[in-house]
Formats: sequence, structure tokens, C-alpha cells
Amino acid sequence: MTEQVATNITWHEGEVTSAERHKNMQQKGVTLWMTGLSASGKSTIAVALEQVLLQQGKHAYRLDGDNVRHGLNKNLGFSAEDRAENIRRIGEVAKLFAEAGIITITSFISPYRADRDLVRKLHDDAGLPFFEVYVDAPLDVAEERDPKGLYKKARAGEIKGFTGIDDPYEAPDKAELHLRTDKLSVEDSVRAMLTYLEEHGLLTAE
Amino acid sequence: MTEQVATNITWHEGEVTSAERHKNMQQKGVTLWMTGLSASGKSTIAVALEQVLLQQGKHAYRLDGDNVRHGLNKNLGFSAEDRAENIRRIGEVAKLFAEAGIITITSFISPYRADRDLVRKLHDDAGLPFFEVYVDAPLDVAEERDPKGLYKKARAGEIKGFTGIDDPYEAPDKAELHLRTDKLSVEDSVRAMLTYLEEHGLLTAE
Repeated sequence: MTEQVATNITWHEGEVTSAERHKNMQQKGVTLWMTGLSASGKSTIAVALEQVLLQQGKHAYRLDGDNVRHGLNKNLGFSAEDRAENIRRIGEVAKLFAEAGIITITSFISPYRADRDLVRKLHDDAGLPFFEVYVDAPLDVAEERDPKGLYKKARAGEIKGFTGIDDPYEAPDKAELHLRTDKLSVEDSVRAMLTYLEEHGLLTAE
Repeated sequence: MTEQVATNITWHEGEVTSAERHKNMQQKGVTLWMTGLSASGKSTIAVALEQVLLQQGKHAYRLDGDNVRHGLNKNLGFSAEDRAENIRRIGEVAKLFAEAGIITITSFISPYRADRDLVRKLHDDAGLPFFEVYVDAPLDVAEERDPKGLYKKARAGEIKGFTGIDDPYEAPDKAELHLRTDKLSVEDSVRAMLTYLEEHGLLTAE
């Protein structure tokens, strides 16, 4: 057995409470669910927001295609059923992160209202805040940006079922934040999200 | 648009680095994977450890049956395939939490060596620390404790495929920590885990 260096070990019955967790982190857990077309600016804003939060000593984490599609959801394809399961699992994981006290930023196209509403309900049922952020660039603007050349491929028929081209994007009708990224700078969008977090008391323990 | 209260917004190219995350949290992310028979003491130790870490201002989170089986993994049953997928998903989620900088404590029986080794590899490949903690009570001790009456039901044939009774428990052969809970108090076990975290530099940023 290893040497015992830790002292003053006491604990109470039952699990850590939300209040204890908030006090420890000086913030409250929340899921910021960014939804929008490919190239609407979700990832760019998410990456910047995470950095700015960390600079302020807050605890944030991003869930995106890079760390989910090749890991947790690598056994899912692109059938209707698998797409729904993809968003469900991400929603469940976001809920766990929010419960852990983390400001959880997800950036997935998540085109279907029903899938997003299910994730919202998961959070509501657990008493955890869920903010839907509609990252809104008009299709022609997103298609003009096309940083990965995906719209071009979709138009050429090389990618099937591409959101906005031959698969629908169901715009949120009750998003807590609506960011018109064809009009707002990344900085403006990040500020808007920070302000929203602040105004809802999520950046403090009380 | 909401009022702009946040100032001094700057960020750099690319994602938050591990070093930035460690500095912000004053710790490093790790997965403490507790494995052992039902009633071996996994949850009791995990709950106490999480509390003690939070008291020290550290950031920890537990993944267990309560928050995983009814959420992320609610669409999995108890076939061999589903049991493996259960552990795989938990391992992927633990990896995300560890990457987020959290001290992640999992408490699942996780009886098969191959499943645990897969989770270890996920962490190794991502350069994230993974400590297997063998929570070891002899079967007769666990069966004597039987707080939920599960061993009794398994012996009566009311539960099939119960680990230790009619399904094997493959004890770890390379666990980083081996806790004999028939000999150690909960406090001793928690101390051993804290000491281990400390000795491996996980409770500081550097």
C-alpha cells in the first residue's frame, strides 16, 4: 500500500450536491447547444468561446464532430435512425457534463427539431439549464464560405443527404439565442453568449 | 441582441491546449476505473473520494450505473454484445471527461479484461492517464454484505448471468491500485487513491 500523505478525510452521507459543485467551480453547469448549417460558424464561435471562458477561469468543454464521431459514436452511420441516435448520445453526454458543473458547448448541425427537443427535455427533466443557440447564416452565405468544399460536392451529387441541399434544416422556433453570423463578427457572437451566461447567473456559484 | 458587458475578448488560433486546461483547473484529467464484484465497495469509495476531492477544490465527477444506464446506455440490454458496448461507451465518455481536465471516477463491475483493456487503450492513444483500481473483496465477503439482495436472487436463479455466481469476474492482472476492501476501511481506500493521484502529479497543473 502507498504511503498515506492525505489528511483530514471526512465525507457526508450521499452524493455531492449541486450547491457543493457550483461553489467548487464558481459557476453552474449548462449546455449551450449550437445548431446551424454547415459553415454557419458554429465551430469557430465555439472554439473562441471556450478559450475566452478558460481565460476567465471558468470551466468549459466542447463536444464536436472531432471528439465524438470518431469515438463514442464511431459505430453510427448516416441512416435516419443513426442520425437520431447520434444526437441522442451527444445530448446525454452533454447532460452529464452540465451535471458535472461544466459549461458544455456542442457544435453539431443537428438539423431536426425533434432531436434537439429531445435533448432539451433530457436537461429539463434533470433540472439542468439548456440554451439552444441558432447559428444562422443564410444558405447562400454558408455555401459561399464552404471552407471544406462540402456544398460543392453536395451540389455535384457526390455527397447525398447534405443539410440545406437535399436534406432539410429545421430552424429552431424557440432558440434562446439567435446569432446572425452574416451580420455579427465572431467576437460579437462570443460576447452575446458570454452576456447570456452572465445574465442567467451561470458564471457564479449563487 | 443582448447588452455587451464582457470586455477584453481575445483568442488564439486553434483549440485550447492541455497545458491551458491544466493551469485553469490546477489539476490534470485522469480516469480512475474502479472494477470489482457487486458489493465490493466501488460506489462507496467513489462517492467518498469525489467528496474529498471537491473539498480540496479539485474537480471530479463520477460515472456509475445511476447516471449512465438510464441515460446514455438505456438502449442497451445484457447480451454479451450489449455489455461490451456498455463498457465501450462509458470508456469513451470517461475519456472525454479526462480530456476536459476532470478527475473521472467510474464504478462499474466491468468483469471482462478485454473490455477494460480497450478502455485503457482509448486513453493511452489519446495520451490521457488511466488508472485501473481493483476493488477487491473475496466473493464470500461480497456475498455476505449483499446490500441489495442481488447475490441471494442470483443464487436462487432469479437473476441470470450474475458476476461471480454464474458469470465470470476476470480479475485485473495489471491494476495500478489493488484495494482489499475486506481489510481496508473506506477511509484507507480513499487515502490510497488520493495519494496515488498526488504521487503522479495529477493534483497540480505542472
